[in-house]
Amino acid sequence: MKDVYILGVGQTPVGEHWDLSLRDLGAAAIRQAMDDANVEQAGALYVGNMLGGCVNGQENVATLLADAAGLLPIEAWKVEAACASGGMAVRAAALAVAAGACDVAVAVGIEKMTDGTSSEVTAGLATAADQDFEASHGLTFVALSALMMQRYMHETGHRREDFAPFAVNAHKNAVSNRNARFRKAITGEEFARSPVVASPIGVLDAAPVCDGAAAVVVGSRKAIRPHHRPIRIAASAAATDTIALAARGNILDFSVAARTGAQVFETSGFARKDIDVFEAHDAFTIITALSVEACGFVPRGEALKHAQNGCFMPGGCTPLSSFGGLKARGHPVGASGAYQIVEASTQLRGEAGENQVPNARVAMTQSIGGHGSVAAAHILEA
Amino acid sequence: MKDVYILGVGQTPVGEHWDLSLRDLGAAAIRQAMDDANVEQAGALYVGNMLGGCVNGQENVATLLADAAGLLPIEAWKVEAACASGGMAVRAAALAVAAGACDVAVAVGIEKMTDGTSSEVTAGLATAADQDFEASHGLTFVALSALMMQRYMHETGHRREDFAPFAVNAHKNAVSNRNARFRKAITGEEFARSPVVASPIGVLDAAPVCDGAAAVVVGSRKAIRPHHRPIRIAASAAATDTIALAARGNILDFSVAARTGAQVFETSGFARKDIDVFEAHDAFTIITALSVEACGFVPRGEALKHAQNGCFMPGGCTPLSSFGGLKARGHPVGASGAYQIVEASTQLRGEAGENQVPNARVAMTQSIGGHGSVAAAHILEA
Repeated sequence: MKDVYILGVGQTPVGEHWDLSLRDLGAAAIRQAMDDANVEQAGALYVGNMLGGCVNGQENVATLLADAAGLLPIEAWKVEAACASGGMAVRAAALAVAAGACDVAVAVGIEKMTDGTSSEVTAGLATAADQDFEASHGLTFVALSALMMQRYMHETGHRREDFAPFAVNAHKNAVSNRNARFRKAITGEEFARSPVVASPIGVLDAAPVCDGAAAVVVGSRKAIRPHHRPIRIAASAAATDTIALAARGNILDFSVAARTGAQVFETSGFARKDIDVFEAHDAFTIITALSVEACGFVPRGEALKHAQNGCFMPGGCTPLSSFGGLKARGHPVGASGAYQIVEASTQLRGEAGENQVPNARVAMTQSIGGHGSVAAAHILEA
Repeated sequence: MKDVYILGVGQTPVGEHWDLSLRDLGAAAIRQAMDDANVEQAGALYVGNMLGGCVNGQENVATLLADAAGLLPIEAWKVEAACASGGMAVRAAALAVAAGACDVAVAVGIEKMTDGTSSEVTAGLATAADQDFEASHGLTFVALSALMMQRYMHETGHRREDFAPFAVNAHKNAVSNRNARFRKAITGEEFARSPVVASPIGVLDAAPVCDGAAAVVVGSRKAIRPHHRPIRIAASAAATDTIALAARGNILDFSVAARTGAQVFETSGFARKDIDVFEAHDAFTIITALSVEACGFVPRGEALKHAQNGCFMPGGCTPLSSFGGLKARGHPVGASGAYQIVEASTQLRGEAGENQVPNARVAMTQSIGGHGSVAAAHILEA
C-alpha cells in the first residue's frame, strides 16, 4: 500500500451533550480537523458510527455529516464495526487515499448515546453481540465481558482489585485532558470499593456511556503542504473472530487483538519496544489486560503483574491511555477508535501538553468491537 | 485507480425468507459468489446493509457474515449509505483491491426486512431521511417520493398513469428471473388502477419490502485465473446531496444521480449510447424517471415520453431493469445495489438466459439512497 499521512485532527469534548445534535457534534469535529490541516475540501468522508440507527433513529449519517459540515457533494458513507467503527473509518479513509480515489479524505467517528434511555443504549450495544445466540437471551455487553474477566481471574488467580492500575492510570491521565469525560483521579481503594455491575465487573472497570466525535484528515504524500506536520500511517490492519463468545476455543485468546497487533508490527517493521504510547481499547479493565497480552507487550497471564509495577503508566515500558483512554476520556462507542488516532497523532506532534509522552515518535492504536469479534489497529510514526 | 475486476457473483432469491436468518442469507450469497469465482479465501469482506440495527437487532453484521461464511479471521466491516449500501459495499471492495490491501475482496449486500413489523420497517426506512427535520415529523419514505412525483407531474403535465411503462417493463422482465420477488406481468391498466399509497404513488409504483442477499468477488488483474470470465469495473463513483429534501434548490435535479452518472461516463470514456443495459434504482417509478434524465439518457422532463415509446424496454435505446429491477426482482434495501452489479455482470457474461440483452458489452448500475441524498454508480465492461 502507498504511504498515507495524517494531516489534521479534531475532536469535541466527550460528555453528555444534551444541547448538541448528531450533526452538530460531527460537523464540529470535521471542521476542526480540516482547519487543523488547513484544507478546504476533501475527496471523501467516512463516518464511523454504531448506534445511529438504534439510538438516534438516524442512518445515512455520513450524508447527514457531509451536509452539516459543508462538504457536499462529497463521497460519503458510514463504516460500522461495532465499537471498532472509529478505527475502521480511519482505515477506510486510508484505503481510499492509497487506492488513488482521492488525495485527501476525512474520517470521523461519532456517537451520541445520551439520546437513548439506558435500556435503549444497553439493547443498542448488545446488537454487536450475536443476536440469535447471545443478545436475544439477555446477555448484555457488560455480562459478556464479565465472563471473560471471571475466566481470567480463575486462570491467573488474580482478584478483582488487581485490575485497579489500568483504571487508576486512565483517570490520572484524564485529569489534564480538557476533552475528557472524567477529569478526576481515583485510587486503588476507590476502585476496589466500586459497586459491582456484573460480577466481577465494577463501575470503575467500565468505560462510560457518552457523546463525542473525533476526526482525522488523511492524505497522500503529494497532498502534504509545508504547513503540515504529517504523521505517517506506518501500518493499518483489521481482523475478525467468531461473533459469539461461546464459539471461541479459548475466550482469553483475544485473537483479533493478537492478529491485528502482529500484522501492524510486521507491516511497519517496528517492535513492541519501539511503541512510545499505546492507545488500547480499555472499555473494561479485562479488555485492556487481554489486549496488552495479545499484542505481545507482556507475556500471557502477566498483564496485572506488569500493571502493578507501573509498566503502563507514564514513564513505564508501554504507556497506555495517555489522554485517559476509553475509561476516563470516555467511550462514545463508534467514535472511540477515531479519538485514539487523534490522541496518538497529538502525542507524535509533541502537542500533548501535560499529557505529553516525552520524545514520542511511534504510537499504536487498537480499536476493538463486539467483545473481541472485530478489531482495527494502526501504528503511526512522527 | 488500478483496474479491478469482478471474478464471481452470487445471489439468493429475493422474497419473504421466514425460514432463513440474516447469517443464512448472507453466507449463501457469499459462498455462491466464491464458488463462482472458484476462490477459497479473500482478503476482506465488505457488507452493505441498512436495517440490521433497527429491524434485526444486529449490528456488527460484517463479523456475523464473515463468521457464518467461514471466512474468519478476514477483515470485515459494514458499509451503510441507506438504500445505496449495496452499491457502496462493492465500491469499498474495489477501493481495497485498488489500494493493494488485498488481491481479492468480497462485497455482499444483505437485508432481511420481514423480521420487522410494518411500522418497524417504515420507521427503519425513515432513518435514511433527516431525523431532525423530516422523519420526526412523520414523513415516510413513500411520502417524500410522493412529493417529488407531485412536483414532476406539475412541471411536466403528466398524469399518474403515464409512469406505467417503467413498472410494466420491470414486471415483464422479472417473469423469467427465478430470483425475482414478483414473477408476474402487469398491464398499464392494472398499474393505473392500483391503490394509492401516498398520492400520487400507488402500490405498483413502489418496490416491495423483502429479504435477500447478493455478493460479488472482486480482484486485481493478477488475481485473474484462466477459469475466470472477468468483468472490468470501468468506473466507480459516489456522491451526496442534502439529506433533507426541503434543503434542495430543485427537488427534481436529482444531483447525486447526475453527478455519479457524469463521473462514471467521464472515467470510463463510454458515452450514453454505449450502455447496453442500465440497472437503475427503480424504487419508485418517479425515481426511475428522474434517474434516466439526470444521467443524460433522455432530456429533462422527457423520461415518460421515451418510456412510452419503448426506449427502456428490451431492444430499446437504454434497456432498464433487465431482471426486474427493484420494482419486481425486489428491493431488500441494503442489498439492491449488489443485486444490480450481480445482474449486470451476468448480462456481460452472456449468461442471462431469457433475460439476456443481446451482445451486451457495457453495463451501468446506479444505487441511490435517502430519496436522492447519496448514490453509488458503476460502469462494467465485458
